[in-house]
Amino acid sequence: MEKLKVIKIGGNIVDDPTKLERFISDFAKLEGLKILVHGGGKVATTIGKSLGIETTMINGRRVTDRPTLDVVTMVYAGLINKNIVAQLQAVSCNAIGLCGVDGAFINSRKRSPHPIDYGFVGDPVSVNIATAKLLLGGGVVPVIAPITGDMGGTLLNTNADTVAQTIATGLAGEYETELVYCFEKRGVLENVEDENSVIRHITPAIFEQLKAEKKVADGMLPKLENAFKAVDEGVERVVICAAEAIGEDGNWGTVIGGCCGSDHATSAGRQ
Amino acid sequence: MEKLKVIKIGGNIVDDPTKLERFISDFAKLEGLKILVHGGGKVATTIGKSLGIETTMINGRRVTDRPTLDVVTMVYAGLINKNIVAQLQAVSCNAIGLCGVDGAFINSRKRSPHPIDYGFVGDPVSVNIATAKLLLGGGVVPVIAPITGDMGGTLLNTNADTVAQTIATGLAGEYETELVYCFEKRGVLENVEDENSVIRHITPAIFEQLKAEKKVADGMLPKLENAFKAVDEGVERVVICAAEAIGEDGNWGTVIGGCCGSDHATSAGRQ
Repeated sequence: MEKLKVIKIGGNIVDDPTKLERFISDFAKLEGLKILVHGGGKVATTIGKSLGIETTMINGRRVTDRPTLDVVTMVYAGLINKNIVAQLQAVSCNAIGLCGVDGAFINSRKRSPHPIDYGFVGDPVSVNIATAKLLLGGGVVPVIAPITGDMGGTLLNTNADTVAQTIATGLAGEYETELVYCFEKRGVLENVEDENSVIRHITPAIFEQLKAEKKVADGMLPKLENAFKAVDEGVERVVICAAEAIGEDGNWGTVIGGCCGSDHATSAGRQ
Repeated sequence: MEKLKVIKIGGNIVDDPTKLERFISDFAKLEGLKILVHGGGKVATTIGKSLGIETTMINGRRVTDRPTLDVVTMVYAGLINKNIVAQLQAVSCNAIGLCGVDGAFINSRKRSPHPIDYGFVGDPVSVNIATAKLLLGGGVVPVIAPITGDMGGTLLNTNADTVAQTIATGLAGEYETELVYCFEKRGVLENVEDENSVIRHITPAIFEQLKAEKKVADGMLPKLENAFKAVDEGVERVVICAAEAIGEDGNWGTVIGGCCGSDHATSAGRQ
């Protein structure tokens, strides 16, 4: 099977023109089939505020009412997506910017309003393999904004980590798929104060241990859950690392799945 | 050669949910290869105003400064484009929403700032035939927002009529191409007060005569110039009509080019 990398970047890259430029350059140079999934960033909040749209949060999560849906659709699928594509094209990477409804790429289900109504929020249920194969086979590089649809005409705000995991999982039967989550740190850290304490490999047993020791931060927990779900469903391996690592050779970041047989005792700590 | 329809809709459809819904349904039912190009509409102006961005006009044309470029990119390539795609998918039309930079579909040149600096405005110079063939051959229906790029990373606001004409012309060597401009009227009118006075066929000679008689309104002049340019450069025929005509059989609207041999004297007037 051909190899495919699904790389996700978040707000820390999207919001920072210098970091984004470096990432674009590194991503463009990556050989082989690749898909980029980008998150939102602060622009949507800023624009929403300017438009007088109040952000409602429940349990730390944004509620997507109709005006908020319009804002995230504009900002994620329009402003951010097209600027990333334009920059990739400028460095000879034949990118094509899409959201979930384009070519019916990702089919989502609107989240149940019970117990909490988050509004127009979608949970992905499937990936359109035909669309993926058409684009990847045609030599174009999909750049995906985290807006999906329910195939009934309704757009839905969707977590970008989950979008990336769904794509990687959905295509694992067609390609040898690697999922890369880029974030602020160099990997999952044994000690959150120490950037050199990257845990190189996390097994399910280590994950349980880290949770018991409360060493997994709030934001990292769903990312790791997505990672294990991906590996369980056929993704070759998941890497959690800093965006800067994309352009670097060698071992970097935290790996879930894959061939490395190391366990917690030997892999954690200063390497 | 296979037939291809390039259909352009403007603000009068995009701004009107009822008209848009009917058009979506009619467009989805059209058989054969097709591309939809949509214009902007009033939403961009409304959102621009809410964001405190002043619209500067020179000679009736909007100047696209950087904040305005961000707004039109968000609204045209995000909000409008993705909502149209979602609605087309809901009626089983496998649409894919793009702007000019996606798959390097349309390459534009930033308009010279002399004599008038319109800012980030682009004039299309070429269409990427490989991208068009990949998508059309793959059974997806491109839906194009009028934002293009200069291949150097800069996005450019672009006239949707010209985008549609560039696509039709650029693909005329590959497909038997028809360009359809949908607008508010049933066609080019002999008498602008009389909706039944559609001129059925306009030859270059008739066009000169209409201009001399000042029967061509300001907005229609560039549309007709685009139409003649398209026919000169290999497009089979151009139809100027109301969006409602897309779902109707029979002859409708004003035709430029094509097989009809009628001239002004016999074709104009009440038919």
